[in-house]
Order: sequence, then structure tokens, then C-alpha cells
Amino acid sequence: MQTLLLNADDVDENARMDRVIDAVRGAFTAYERGNAKMPAKSYIDLPEYDGDFRSMPAYLDIRAEDTAEETGWDAAGIKWVNAHPDNPADHGLPTVMGTMIYSDPETAFPLAILDGTTLTMKRTGAAAAVATDHLAVPDATSLGIVGAGVQSYTQLEAIAEVRDIEEVVVSDLDEERVADFVDAFGDRFDVRAGSPSAAGHCDVLSTVTPVEDPIVGPDDVGEHTHVNAMGADAEGKHELADDLLLDATVVIDDREQCTHSGEINVPYAAGTLTDDDIYGEVGEIVVGNRPGRAGVDAGSDAPDADAEGVTGVTVFDSTGLAIQDVAAARVVYEQADDNDNGYPFDLLGLAE
Amino acid sequence: MQTLLLNADDVDENARMDRVIDAVRGAFTAYERGNAKMPAKSYIDLPEYDGDFRSMPAYLDIRAEDTAEETGWDAAGIKWVNAHPDNPADHGLPTVMGTMIYSDPETAFPLAILDGTTLTMKRTGAAAAVATDHLAVPDATSLGIVGAGVQSYTQLEAIAEVRDIEEVVVSDLDEERVADFVDAFGDRFDVRAGSPSAAGHCDVLSTVTPVEDPIVGPDDVGEHTHVNAMGADAEGKHELADDLLLDATVVIDDREQCTHSGEINVPYAAGTLTDDDIYGEVGEIVVGNRPGRAGVDAGSDAPDADAEGVTGVTVFDSTGLAIQDVAAARVVYEQADDNDNGYPFDLLGLAE
Repeated sequence: MQTLLLNADDVDENARMDRVIDAVRGAFTAYERGNAKMPAKSYIDLPEYDGDFRSMPAYLDIRAEDTAEETGWDAAGIKWVNAHPDNPADHGLPTVMGTMIYSDPETAFPLAILDGTTLTMKRTGAAAAVATDHLAVPDATSLGIVGAGVQSYTQLEAIAEVRDIEEVVVSDLDEERVADFVDAFGDRFDVRAGSPSAAGHCDVLSTVTPVEDPIVGPDDVGEHTHVNAMGADAEGKHELADDLLLDATVVIDDREQCTHSGEINVPYAAGTLTDDDIYGEVGEIVVGNRPGRAGVDAGSDAPDADAEGVTGVTVFDSTGLAIQDVAAARVVYEQADDNDNGYPFDLLGLAE
Repeated sequence: MQTLLLNADDVDENARMDRVIDAVRGAFTAYERGNAKMPAKSYIDLPEYDGDFRSMPAYLDIRAEDTAEETGWDAAGIKWVNAHPDNPADHGLPTVMGTMIYSDPETAFPLAILDGTTLTMKRTGAAAAVATDHLAVPDATSLGIVGAGVQSYTQLEAIAEVRDIEEVVVSDLDEERVADFVDAFGDRFDVRAGSPSAAGHCDVLSTVTPVEDPIVGPDDVGEHTHVNAMGADAEGKHELADDLLLDATVVIDDREQCTHSGEINVPYAAGTLTDDDIYGEVGEIVVGNRPGRAGVDAGSDAPDADAEGVTGVTVFDSTGLAIQDVAAARVVYEQADDNDNGYPFDLLGLAE
């Protein structure tokens, strides 16, 4: 019995986005139904390096009815990840690096060790796609992206799986990043550079920046724009102006994480935004306990003109949950195993 | 930049016990001095599999004066480990399997991924050796071991580094285990099988069993025996009778862990043993804030007939700390790197 090592390329090749989205949707479902176990993220702060480590363990039990697959499954694992903003300038390394251990819950054998950096991008895109599926207008065709860094690519890849995206407006102060993004997707979509406001007037907007001063205000979005606020992952960070949030229907991924480190953390700490301003968790919408967008059938991505639900601007506050990592890791592992990808390694000396 | 993969054999070969002991002693020192960060172990309980997962992250900053090495160092990492008691019978797998990610705290780059199972045995032996060094009589020459399972081997290996052990008494209901143990060490020590009481009348006793009913009582130990109680790692487990504990000087590795899952957890929960019955943490003795055994110089292993300190029976309640894993992983990584051992792997795709 060996442990399958899956490097960045292996994760990229085997994280089929439609399956990752289905798995992440299943994870939100399981979490909402009490079929997931996810201890709080634990942090090791290292101010001497302006960085931190985060450990994100989780267990998921997906029922057959929660997934597009024929049978249910369960899975466990942990992601060990960091944020060291000085890495690019000081060490030529990414700010965020992750390592994921994916384990069989029945025996705890480590089935795979995966590059957690690529995995994070995939599962983050998938979370935005699940939220978009339930909260964007059914006929959405345009996507705006503010922040053209590494996380932006999977926003488009994933969201294009749930809506027929034709037009993309990308906004970033760094022109090279914008050019790279246009290069990467110009053959599949009508992609152009634009202001944050131009991006925000698309049917869907994903903000993917690390800013501490909001860069998107209420006038920067359309009347029915769905916003995926992906960037904030620590106290003090937020991308959207308070009055945009207060006028919107705000959906979060997890109450504990969002109020402490998500998009809403700053106005929540200030008391400007309260529990009454939070519509619900994404899992509640996915399982149908709360309506999503009017015209989108609850609990599925089928348009249904009669379906009641929210209107106007919607915001998804995504902090990223350990259950998303476990769900995505399972997709990658199963696919890589089927394809004989990866490098089997006898880490524990149990192969003979 | 690649991640070094260190399998069970690599860990075994590169965990030089004298260095692991020094590193673990340094870890206890750093923890006592507030130079370590160790979030609480987090558990995922899986009653459906009669098992659990535990995540153990830590950061250590060892000062030069805390170690036999010439310079200080810091290190970070996480161990993901489990306890699935049905594994051997149902799956032909060990009850406990661990995977360790060892990271550079300055950048968070994962320097190494190690077999955490072998690492656990090494660092657990080392912890017993550090405690024995400070709590056993200086001229100890005999070691008893109750429980001849996988953890027993490193007890002898490690304790023999801090005392001139000549005679070993090993006790286990399983005769094959006893024979294997005698085979393994018969050429280096005078090893014989014996009862728990015979083992307990040695100068040092290590109990390494998963029992829930104590198997060593007050009459089973000598007048000055130092006992390393290594087995208890979960609520309900204990190896030593309450009246042995109450008459002994009890040293713990960590108050939180020991009162919840260590040797003292059962009488502590019952109120039979209270905070007043706990002498202190091993770190306090290692740094010299509390005397160790009379005749052992505080803060070092040098015999000093004039040194004041505790007499009679002493007990070390070891639950195992994440800082021990990080300390041991650092020894293994540094040594393996020097020896060109292990398998470098470009997990994160950053090699070019």
C-alpha cells in the first residue's frame, strides 16, 4: 500500500472542474446537514516573518443524493497552508503554499499527498461557481473579475461551468497581469480589460484581491449583479464598500470564519453589519432551506421562471472551508488513480 | 526547490537518538520559556470506524543556550495522525499512522514530508529519556518495560542514552512480542522476561500499553523507581493505580493534554487526583525552575551528590506534544539532507 504523490501539474490535470464543483456542492450540503466534521482552522502567527500557518482538517460524508455521482462517499484530510506576503519579493516564492494530506477515513491511511496550492485555486473557483449557480441570474452571460492574480483564472474556469459566460471584463492595476489573463482566455471568451466598475456591471463579479480598503462601491455594480467576494481571508481585509454589502443579499460560507476573517469581518466588528444583515450560509441555499435567486430552481441549477427567491445585488462571502479541500482532493485522487497519474511512494513502509 | 520525502527507513536511519533527545529537551525548554507556539491538538472523532484523526501543528524557536548545538534554530510543522484500534485485525494496518509535514517557518516552504509513525516512536522515546535524565536516580542501571509493542523499542534505545542501562526486564502477555524484544536487544543488554512487578522494581520503568485498568500498583515498584507512563493517550486510559500516583512525585508534559487524555486523566476527572498532586511540567524541571531528582544537577544530566531534589517514586505522564514532532523532524531532515538520503520531489511545481 503506497501513498500517491500528486504535484502541481497532477492536481491541475486531474481536478476536472465540473467534478470539483459537484464535490464542493456536496461538501456544502453535507456541512449543512451535519454530515461533516470540521474543527476550527487553527493559526500559528509568526510576526517575526510577517506570516502565518493554518491547519485545516476535515471529514466529509457525502450521501448519494448530495452528488451527481451514483453512490455516496466519505473522505478525510488536512491542508497545511500559509500566508507569507513577503515571499515573492524576499524569496521568489508564492505568498501562499499548501500541502494536502488526503486520507482514507476508515483506516486513516494517507492515500495521497497533493500540492495544496493548485488545489486551493480549484476549490476556491468551485465555491464561487456553486454560489453563482444559486445566486446569479439564470441567463447571466457576462463575468467581471477584479484582481487578475493566480486565483482569478479558476474563477472564470469554474463560473463558465454554471453559466454561459461569453463576455469577460478583467480589472487589475498591473497591466501585465491583465495581458496574461486575456492571453489565457481570449480564444474562448470575449475578454477585455476594464475598470472595476465595468467589471462590476457584468451579471457576475468576482473580486479576488487582498485589499484592506474597499475597491467596489454600490455604484460599481449592476442592478442584479451577483458578487463573489473571494479575497478577504484575514482580519482587516475587505473588498466591498459597507453600503454595497448593506443593500445586498449577503450569503456566507461559514458564520465563524466570515465574521472573523471574511469579507464582512470589518463592518461586522464595527457593528455596522450585524447578524440581521446576513441572509444565510451557502449550504442552506444549496440544500433548499432558503431560496436562491428568483428564477433559479432551489437546490439545482435549472432555470425556473416561477421560482421565488432573492432579487437585486447578491454577495457571496467566501473564506474557504477545509471541507472544500477534502472534496476537491477526492476528485483529484480518484481521477489520478484511474489515469495512473502521480508517483506512488511507500512513505509508511507498508508496501511489502 | 524541492520537498524531501523521507520514508520509514529514512526516518529510522536519520533519527540519531542522541540528537533527537537534545532536540526534544530543547523543545520542552522553548515551550516552558514561551518560545513555542502549539495550538491545541484538534480531533476528528469517527465512531463509525472506531477511530479518530488528530492534527498537531507547532512552531519552535530554540535558542543556542537551549541545545547542545552551536547555534539556535527555529522550525515548524504539523503531524496528522490517527488511532484506529481495529486496523490490525480488520485491515492488516497499524493502529496508528502518522504523516509529518516539516516546513521552513520563514517562508512556509514544505522542506520535507516524513513518515510520522516512525517519527512518533523516536520522539516518544526521547521524551522518556529527557524525563528519566532529570528524574531517575543518577546511578540507574536497570530498566523495566511493561508492554513490548512497537513503542517499547525506542524506550530502551533512548533511555540507554541517558543512563548506563545494563539490565532490562520486559513484561508482556504476548510471549512472541517478548521474544522479539529479547532478540532485538539481547546482544547489547542483559534482557529477560518478567512480571510487571519485576519490571517495576528496576531503577526506571516505562509502561507502554493501551490499558484502561491499571496494571502497575504501589507494590509493583521499587523505593526510588522513576516511571515513564507512556501509554495513556485518550480519556479512560491509565496504566498506574491511583495510590501509586498519589504517593509519587508526578511530572506531566502538558497540563491541558495530561488532565484530558494522559495517565492522570481518570483520577483527575474523578477528583481523586487534583492539581495539588501534580509536581510540575517537565519543562520546568528541564530549565531548572523546579528541582529534579535529588543527586541530579538541575538542568543537566551531571550527577551531583549535593543537588537537592525529589526522592522516592517519580512518575512522568507523557501524552506527546506537537513540539516534540517538530523537533525530531528537524533532526531527521537535517541529517538526511547532509547524507543525501530521501527522495526530492517537486510537489509544489517550484523547482524550475
